[in-house]
Amino acid sequence: MTTATTPEPAPHDRAGIDRTGIDKTGIDQATALDAADPLAGLGELFTLPADVIYLDGNSLGALPGAVPDRIAATVTGEWGDGLIRSWNDADWINAPRRVGAKIAPLVGAAPDNVIAADSTTVNLFKVLSAALARRPQRRKIITETRNFPTDNYIAEGVIRQTGCGHQLVHAGSVEAIRDLLDDDVAVLMLTHVNYRDGSVHDMAGLTRAAHDAGALVIWDLAHSAGVMPLNLAGCDVDFAIGCGYKFLNGGPGAPAFLYVAPRHLGGDGQPLTGWFGHADPFGFEPHYRPAADISQYLCGTPPVLGLVALEAALDLWDGIDIGQVHTKAQQLTGYFIDLVEARCGGHDLALISPRDAACRGAQVAFTHPTGGHAIIAALIADGVIGDFRAPDVLRFGFAPLYTRFVDVWHAVDRLADILDQRRWDRPEFHTRRKVT
Amino acid sequence: MTTATTPEPAPHDRAGIDRTGIDKTGIDQATALDAADPLAGLGELFTLPADVIYLDGNSLGALPGAVPDRIAATVTGEWGDGLIRSWNDADWINAPRRVGAKIAPLVGAAPDNVIAADSTTVNLFKVLSAALARRPQRRKIITETRNFPTDNYIAEGVIRQTGCGHQLVHAGSVEAIRDLLDDDVAVLMLTHVNYRDGSVHDMAGLTRAAHDAGALVIWDLAHSAGVMPLNLAGCDVDFAIGCGYKFLNGGPGAPAFLYVAPRHLGGDGQPLTGWFGHADPFGFEPHYRPAADISQYLCGTPPVLGLVALEAALDLWDGIDIGQVHTKAQQLTGYFIDLVEARCGGHDLALISPRDAACRGAQVAFTHPTGGHAIIAALIADGVIGDFRAPDVLRFGFAPLYTRFVDVWHAVDRLADILDQRRWDRPEFHTRRKVT
Repeated sequence: MTTATTPEPAPHDRAGIDRTGIDKTGIDQATALDAADPLAGLGELFTLPADVIYLDGNSLGALPGAVPDRIAATVTGEWGDGLIRSWNDADWINAPRRVGAKIAPLVGAAPDNVIAADSTTVNLFKVLSAALARRPQRRKIITETRNFPTDNYIAEGVIRQTGCGHQLVHAGSVEAIRDLLDDDVAVLMLTHVNYRDGSVHDMAGLTRAAHDAGALVIWDLAHSAGVMPLNLAGCDVDFAIGCGYKFLNGGPGAPAFLYVAPRHLGGDGQPLTGWFGHADPFGFEPHYRPAADISQYLCGTPPVLGLVALEAALDLWDGIDIGQVHTKAQQLTGYFIDLVEARCGGHDLALISPRDAACRGAQVAFTHPTGGHAIIAALIADGVIGDFRAPDVLRFGFAPLYTRFVDVWHAVDRLADILDQRRWDRPEFHTRRKVT
Repeated sequence: MTTATTPEPAPHDRAGIDRTGIDKTGIDQATALDAADPLAGLGELFTLPADVIYLDGNSLGALPGAVPDRIAATVTGEWGDGLIRSWNDADWINAPRRVGAKIAPLVGAAPDNVIAADSTTVNLFKVLSAALARRPQRRKIITETRNFPTDNYIAEGVIRQTGCGHQLVHAGSVEAIRDLLDDDVAVLMLTHVNYRDGSVHDMAGLTRAAHDAGALVIWDLAHSAGVMPLNLAGCDVDFAIGCGYKFLNGGPGAPAFLYVAPRHLGGDGQPLTGWFGHADPFGFEPHYRPAADISQYLCGTPPVLGLVALEAALDLWDGIDIGQVHTKAQQLTGYFIDLVEARCGGHDLALISPRDAACRGAQVAFTHPTGGHAIIAALIADGVIGDFRAPDVLRFGFAPLYTRFVDVWHAVDRLADILDQRRWDRPEFHTRRKVT
């Protein structure tokens, strides 16, 4: 695995596809792109159903082939036979640190600054609380209106609980964020790759701007870890959180991760002061005494089954060049945009993702004025899995480890047919499911 | 499964064993007790290694035989083939409520007042915060010095985070608890069955006393759920939390659960205000709006693999009489105490668990002035798994679903030999492991 570096702006044609020569009619171009893909062989490391084109790895990553055996060994061997002894013998006790260390190179961090724990949302509560405590005289938290809702909800929860009169300020644009950074800002809290449209923030620049104003930064990496090189250490980021079940393929509800800069470790930290974050968890001391290292950001007993699945999923990254992953993400998304625009014109789809490959992650979103949910439902019925995000967004994720260019071609082929035949406008596709 | 009822004080001889006639020498009495045990057949529902006598189900429950296939089906079928669709098709989305409803009868609650989520420690943070918000004019939280440390640590974390000058008062006895209940007490926070010595609190009486003083109560059921009838609703308890991986056999780091009385649902509640606790999680509204039901106590994306294992483990309770489970727990623990005292005298073991079966859960603890850790280590080397709790406690758990009376007999037989031969006093048994 290569060490992460700051992503550089890439030219529009970095994908290497001749965009003036997009082939609207045939699959040959896609086949040729797959043949030239240095990551093509990695798809074999995943188990995907034969009748599905999966464009939702940004929501739940596919199953790595190594996971079932690893989970079975943990359940029957480590739990069933090893029982309580496996906390030592199978080293369950170090799983949060071990898994964190395996995530670290993907986010550009030292191994002992990342730990796997709890959910992304709970981890945001921890790091936001810790960050505010480090800027006690400041009263503003800057976020984006379009940040993933749970991030803003958690900020509201922290604010209400601390009762210190903090204000959550929703910025409507990058320019607004920069304008808002004044000497009353405690924390700038942003998601690196936006969950709706896949647009990417300038982590280095915005972190610097926040620091220049004396504020701390928290980056949510839910949609960027596993998609592109990241450089938390190099960007001097204070705190980061991220998700285990998207592009890291850790399974449904996998443990999340968090990053804390070395300068913020030690001393009082986060408020979820459970025994696993204690300096001596099994010393059963009467009072909390925080661990001096990243373990302080643990709380209760770690979820072993989830950690084991996530660890098996992370092991497949060994030897993968994250720079190549990023390039393929840009190619896949660019090819998808070009094909959709070439073949699905006149159907009211509007691209809301950046056209510049350097400005987007591994997902592409279109809006549709009335049919967003139904078009996605029709696609799913046709075996093409994307997802819908209220109120009007069709979202497609392209996981470079297992998505092929021919998948993109077939997906657009079916989308074009659904639109051309107006097959989406049937009653069964307008019925909302609980989650889409 | 019977509906839970408040445990009644039981006579010392409720276990039905003639304690004056304990058979020190032979296994026949144990064999006869197993033959008369109405729960004896349940052991077949668990997978236990043949060479182990497992007396640590209070720390990590044994593997239910149904779990491996259920987990495998979730991993390969629901995740691998179903992918994101399984949130609907496999009803992952309702797993926290569904699992909570299966725990509910074991704790004497309505199905929609219990939910499975996060860790016990995180759940305590939620309910303690919610309870304090409901008593804003009061400044004291009463706990016990001997409460499980993470509970007291979390109270310290909540107090620091809220910054309202709350005071955590450590009571040294039940009498002290009652004396401390004045009109400045916001919350009485206790563990029902003590983690060290297995002693049981009077849930009904202490809840009433707290309410008489205008305080709310939180009960930690980590060591009581699955061991004895509980009656949270009947005792008018405000909040409760509990553990999935002990007597509920949900696996290492299984999701925990929490209970909220109907009168405390709705309105503002807990501070971990993540999207799964929102009234419309997939509505992507800009501001947090709490769910009106128990879902409000969810936070981030639920840990599906852990929930599936826990659910499979809970399904085996169907048809089990929790009253019989309690009786067997009293018998097993009583038999163990009697055998140890009959066969291990003169070796400085001192019982710290209650002699009265009505006053203890399903575990028994002895102290030893110098050899606590080493004796447990020697027992484990002999295939008898108990655990050590610093500084000097030997702790043994007796899970009524799978522990047999002959297991108790063999365990004490080996303990007696280790003590008689002083086999524990070897260098290898004095080396501390990370977790014991």
